[in-house]
Amino acid sequence: MPDVLSRLHTRLTGGESVLNGWLHLPGGVSAEVMGQAGYDTLTIDLQHGLIGDGGLVSSLQAIAATPAAALVRVPWLHPPDLMRALDAGAAGVICPMVDTAEQAGALVHACRYAPQGGRSYGPTRASLVYPDYLGRADTQTLVFAMIETALALQNLDAILDIPGLSGVYVGPADLSLSLTGTATLDFRQGRAAEAVAHIAREAERRHLIPGIFTQGGDLARHAISLGYRFITAGSDVALLGGAAKAVLADLRVAPGPAAAPSY
Amino acid sequence: MPDVLSRLHTRLTGGESVLNGWLHLPGGVSAEVMGQAGYDTLTIDLQHGLIGDGGLVSSLQAIAATPAAALVRVPWLHPPDLMRALDAGAAGVICPMVDTAEQAGALVHACRYAPQGGRSYGPTRASLVYPDYLGRADTQTLVFAMIETALALQNLDAILDIPGLSGVYVGPADLSLSLTGTATLDFRQGRAAEAVAHIAREAERRHLIPGIFTQGGDLARHAISLGYRFITAGSDVALLGGAAKAVLADLRVAPGPAAAPSY
Amino acid sequence: MPDVLSRLHTRLTGGESVLNGWLHLPGGVSAEVMGQAGYDTLTIDLQHGLIGDGGLVSSLQAIAATPAAALVRVPWLHPPDLMRALDAGAAGVICPMVDTAEQAGALVHACRYAPQGGRSYGPTRASLVYPDYLGRADTQTLVFAMIETALALQNLDAILDIPGLSGVYVGPADLSLSLTGTATLDFRQGRAAEAVAHIAREAERRHLIPGIFTQGGDLARHAISLGYRFITAGSDVALLGGAAKAVLADLRVAPGPAAAPSY
Amino acid sequence: MPDVLSRLHTRLTGGESVLNGWLHLPGGVSAEVMGQAGYDTLTIDLQHGLIGDGGLVSSLQAIAATPAAALVRVPWLHPPDLMRALDAGAAGVICPMVDTAEQAGALVHACRYAPQGGRSYGPTRASLVYPDYLGRADTQTLVFAMIETALALQNLDAILDIPGLSGVYVGPADLSLSLTGTATLDFRQGRAAEAVAHIAREAERRHLIPGIFTQGGDLARHAISLGYRFITAGSDVALLGGAAKAVLADLRVAPGPAAAPSY
Amino acid sequence: MPDVLSRLHTRLTGGESVLNGWLHLPGGVSAEVMGQAGYDTLTIDLQHGLIGDGGLVSSLQAIAATPAAALVRVPWLHPPDLMRALDAGAAGVICPMVDTAEQAGALVHACRYAPQGGRSYGPTRASLVYPDYLGRADTQTLVFAMIETALALQNLDAILDIPGLSGVYVGPADLSLSLTGTATLDFRQGRAAEAVAHIAREAERRHLIPGIFTQGGDLARHAISLGYRFITAGSDVALLGGAAKAVLADLRVAPGPAAAPSY
Amino acid sequence: MPDVLSRLHTRLTGGESVLNGWLHLPGGVSAEVMGQAGYDTLTIDLQHGLIGDGGLVSSLQAIAATPAAALVRVPWLHPPDLMRALDAGAAGVICPMVDTAEQAGALVHACRYAPQGGRSYGPTRASLVYPDYLGRADTQTLVFAMIETALALQNLDAILDIPGLSGVYVGPADLSLSLTGTATLDFRQGRAAEAVAHIAREAERRHLIPGIFTQGGDLARHAISLGYRFITAGSDVALLGGAAKAVLADLRVAPGPAAAPSY
Ligand SMILES: [Mg+2]
Ligand SMILES: [Mg+2]
Ligand SMILES: [Mg+2]
Ligand SMILES: [Mg+2]
Ligand SMILES: [Mg+2]
Ligand SMILES: [Mg+2]
Repeated sequence: MPDVLSRLHTRLTGGESVLNGWLHLPGGVSAEVMGQAGYDTLTIDLQHGLIGDGGLVSSLQAIAATPAAALVRVPWLHPPDLMRALDAGAAGVICPMVDTAEQAGALVHACRYAPQGGRSYGPTRASLVYPDYLGRADTQTLVFAMIETALALQNLDAILDIPGLSGVYVGPADLSLSLTGTATLDFRQGRAAEAVAHIAREAERRHLIPGIFTQGGDLARHAISLGYRFITAGSDVALLGGAAKAVLADLRVAPGPAAAPSY
Repeated sequence: MPDVLSRLHTRLTGGESVLNGWLHLPGGVSAEVMGQAGYDTLTIDLQHGLIGDGGLVSSLQAIAATPAAALVRVPWLHPPDLMRALDAGAAGVICPMVDTAEQAGALVHACRYAPQGGRSYGPTRASLVYPDYLGRADTQTLVFAMIETALALQNLDAILDIPGLSGVYVGPADLSLSLTGTATLDFRQGRAAEAVAHIAREAERRHLIPGIFTQGGDLARHAISLGYRFITAGSDVALLGGAAKAVLADLRVAPGPAAAPSY
Repeated sequence: MPDVLSRLHTRLTGGESVLNGWLHLPGGVSAEVMGQAGYDTLTIDLQHGLIGDGGLVSSLQAIAATPAAALVRVPWLHPPDLMRALDAGAAGVICPMVDTAEQAGALVHACRYAPQGGRSYGPTRASLVYPDYLGRADTQTLVFAMIETALALQNLDAILDIPGLSGVYVGPADLSLSLTGTATLDFRQGRAAEAVAHIAREAERRHLIPGIFTQGGDLARHAISLGYRFITAGSDVALLGGAAKAVLADLRVAPGPAAAPSY
Repeated sequence: MPDVLSRLHTRLTGGESVLNGWLHLPGGVSAEVMGQAGYDTLTIDLQHGLIGDGGLVSSLQAIAATPAAALVRVPWLHPPDLMRALDAGAAGVICPMVDTAEQAGALVHACRYAPQGGRSYGPTRASLVYPDYLGRADTQTLVFAMIETALALQNLDAILDIPGLSGVYVGPADLSLSLTGTATLDFRQGRAAEAVAHIAREAERRHLIPGIFTQGGDLARHAISLGYRFITAGSDVALLGGAAKAVLADLRVAPGPAAAPSY
Repeated sequence: MPDVLSRLHTRLTGGESVLNGWLHLPGGVSAEVMGQAGYDTLTIDLQHGLIGDGGLVSSLQAIAATPAAALVRVPWLHPPDLMRALDAGAAGVICPMVDTAEQAGALVHACRYAPQGGRSYGPTRASLVYPDYLGRADTQTLVFAMIETALALQNLDAILDIPGLSGVYVGPADLSLSLTGTATLDFRQGRAAEAVAHIAREAERRHLIPGIFTQGGDLARHAISLGYRFITAGSDVALLGGAAKAVLADLRVAPGPAAAPSY
Repeated sequence: MPDVLSRLHTRLTGGESVLNGWLHLPGGVSAEVMGQAGYDTLTIDLQHGLIGDGGLVSSLQAIAATPAAALVRVPWLHPPDLMRALDAGAAGVICPMVDTAEQAGALVHACRYAPQGGRSYGPTRASLVYPDYLGRADTQTLVFAMIETALALQNLDAILDIPGLSGVYVGPADLSLSLTGTATLDFRQGRAAEAVAHIAREAERRHLIPGIFTQGGDLARHAISLGYRFITAGSDVALLGGAAKAVLADLRVAPGPAAAPSY
């Protein structure tokens, strides 16, 4: 049976959609809980997550014990971070703040081996877990450029035309912050709405995978209706905090002995 | 303002109720998310949790940065585990499988200083975070004995009569397993139901705090109606996994591109 | 396809043999390297290993990402250590220094749920990774008692007759130390030789799995010839240190610029 | 040159004195700072420290990089904790709350190999760092029984007569708590004073090493004058907290812009 | 009551002074000891400290449990490091080696949200612990540029004129190394003395907070006299090592049994 | 006796050769096993290793407890990574992908103090473990530039002429990938062969230390014959995996009960 690296690649390049879970919590246990919950893929967020560089490998190992494939959102367009995520066995990387074609080119260069790029050779864990890794690393690992600023929208065509990208990933909060000065995850209204629809169309037109962040629910459905196929639907911190608050609100709604904490 | 140690003691000995969150996840970040969600107390479960001895202090520190008070469920009635939880600053301990009065006595002995008990002196973190700790450790720290077997029910009166206990804590799954051979958290029916009601009455009659584990909702409400005042209402692993599955089920309910994971 | 828990149980109760790797190194990466090397099972040694309680879960997760099944050698016959290893998802446990039938009974009691034993209910990770865990925990998880002292040999029949054991595991170094005052892994000569042959026969006669520690090679072959079916063949620290020394010895054998370190 | 294990043994059995530092902080860096400061020995306190089982090995490694020898105070008289400290390379162990000759015997039994005791064989790190470890483990590793209760004083002769002990270690806070109901480190007055002087005499008379805890200064000098030769003189948490408070008090002593924190 | 983020901002922009502790040790326990000792603020040094990226969050959590506010000195002017410190809840950042106005501009750009800067949105822990974080992040979080080279002195006016800086922080060792070829913390003499006085004046003239590193004592007092208001007064490694050496020197000053370590 | 920093410098600048072990595994225990195996030096690989930033210090401490000297291969030519490795006590650094003289200059600048370079002052651990560190840091710490691309070969003369480099280090896999499109460690044939011989000659001609990566054996011998004097001979992951596979292959070579894993 093909391994998770090749299956994810096949699914996404074959036009299928996947639901992705987002990891802000450090430690492999919460990652495993997310993987067992049924996400197709999980993304370890090294940018805004609370994971720390040292948690990368253990999170990847925890995910490898579940049905989910693992991606990594790196903190920045910094070549060693991209290479280390791939060396550690990530099936793909998501790079924030890709605003220009030059940056998109640098992203691809860091993620692909020569002659296409300049990725340094040393897939320590990747070659341990993926047979014949070198032969398929450049075709099967996924490279997503984040489109999340007004500048990136201006340069969208040039960015998407860079060979070697697998897809784009929209960060709605940063995009709305850049476009309107307010950060919101809701991309159904206003200037962000047009942009988000436009990005999906332009990506699919070039056979690139369109991806986007949501917390699930109506925004995820809306993203799917726009053609997004790599759809984040929930982050662990938000899921845990939300579920805990819901349990407490349910119990504290009526006056009673447990209604109000006195400190 | 009194600190969290004295406030929790005052609330519970004054007849108030608290809602407790249960921690199975290692790492301080999920603990902090739970604490910010609004639980009155959080219990670090070193018995069935996935935390490991090395995570005790960092979890306690993370909780100390939230409004919640921290308790520790130790793995066993093993004196150094009880002492170390208290030395590290736990406001209380919960000890599993207290089946006899002798065991209840050993529990109290490990948690109280001479002359009442034999707790070894060295409250390294407790004295750092609680001013005048020695003067109030024996009165304010909470000691819960778990009642969770048929044998403990038989010995209930003798257990509850041991001086120095603060309360009892019911483990419904172990109790039902012991009584019926099946583990269930639902204590509203059958032999467990009578036992659970009886424990609360006997505890309150002796001015001991009755506590119990639930995942919140109707079971928590039922526990409150029975007089339980230290009510666990949710554990992090169950909350996170449940919330993630709910998001995915909502999106996969209708056929469509994201309906079924193909691997 | 049956999962690793049920497959390992089926293999070993069906008379097959497995080769086990032994883990003394902390951290999931070396565990994963061992698992990818082809061992059928890996045992995390919490007694003489350098892993620490906090490394249990991450080692189990790392192994879960490989084809190998995971067992845990606990530090001692201390009930919470046995329960926590199983709760964390170990497919089996190995308990050191089981010298009497009473100790064997206590071992089984800690590892089996009521009514057979007194294992506390809370398989936090086990139920996450093994579907229907409660229904098969008592039949499929493996419980090995270590036979490694003169006293255990005296009590062998009584130990093996305790219901609920899955097998025995011979510690040749401790056994020879106890029998002769010298610790050696070589059980082919002298008093240990007879004992080791005897244990395998007595175990198989009762349909118990006979297991033993070796570093592989001739001792492993000898163990197989004696009927051992759970054969440890190599520990990570010994494999790594041995391989490194061999590389260095090969390069330093002839005089030359790299022959001798000057400090 | 003899290694640190044999040098420490030689010094202490030869009548010399050593100054010991006490480690409550987790992590190898503070341990290394203490070792470089000039202590002869450092004791990793797994009882009242905040280190956690998982920090044992890294603390031992950090100390091994300094001139100091490392000991471990275990959490309790629990055999696997003693064995694991020694397996990990501790040059000695200190066991709390040894109140009876039977407990002293159990302590020695756990720390010495057959035929003297029942220490399980597996010195994973000890044999890595100490050449010919097995040949000298039982003679060179130090075993200290803590004398820190009224009961231990009653049983002092019987405890000290147990063969295999290397020395005793006085815990002044627990001793005063047990004798007077108040915990104090000052053993120069009252009932503790007589006891502390008596213990040193009785130990030396049997060629056992007398040890004691102090924070240095006059109490350390007093202990030396009483014949103590393994003298703890400072713990990391107290040293760090004391030094920080002194710096702040010096700067805030006079009114001025930095005199008072407003929150 | 305003939280620590807003109180620190109010104090420093209101002309008050604070005493800051410096953290080179990894782990939350030493951080908590420093926070309980009474520092107004603590700075986690990710540049020259021994903390590692993975220790950032746990150190921030430990400090959050004390009265102190937390800042982070990042390793370099590398945007993701600045953003991650702020996302993790730092009340401020200190950036080393800001030598030009262009670098100062890049520093501000990384720390402020659009439209002022380009900080990526995702304050995972900051929004957990600070209510209404987005509304006040750009005004209340503190951004210090380190002035510590001859080049920075040349460009001082241009650096200080960059809008969005909160203050400057002088690194006396690097400054003296750059000016004189010798690293010293004593800025009371020579070329560094003039520079240090000049920086404070120029900063205050622009309502920027002048900050500086000292180990406390006379240098701290001198800094206060020059108008510095964010005064580091002690680092944990130096405090711990200094206190330990002082205890040992005191005991070894007179000849005697403990006077000299023999190895 | 001179310490390890000065001895390594003396050996290598005096024309001696050393055998280096390569560390891809996180955690100090495997590092210590490698150090005790007899390597002259060990290099912690933060580029392709699985160690993580947080493991740097504990690996360095573990190595310091062995006879080996420690170097660090940083992930990239990123100044703070170089400085932090040196501050933490590395005796040398190896920087990947140095392709131009400008990059070689930036490498030296980051590693040497003013006036030669711009290394920021703060050798927190280095000054703890190396007496008089500042006085000899710039002369004794080793700085290796990796030559591993076609571009670097073109610029070889200009790179080697940059003052302040201690040596060069050849990455054969990247070099062959860059020259031929295929990654291989075997540099005995084809275009890489000429390059590898050329680099050694050019380095020695300038009194620079030529270094290279091998897994030992014939390739190491060939490197020695070419004049390489800093010869890597084995990486921990490869040594461990190879040794485990060899043990298993030996036991599974003949059909039999343990011949084939059935899952
Ligand atoms: Mg974004
Ligand atoms: Mg229970
Ligand atoms: Mg054994
Ligand atoms: Mg004590
Ligand atoms: Mg500086
Ligand atoms: Mg390379």
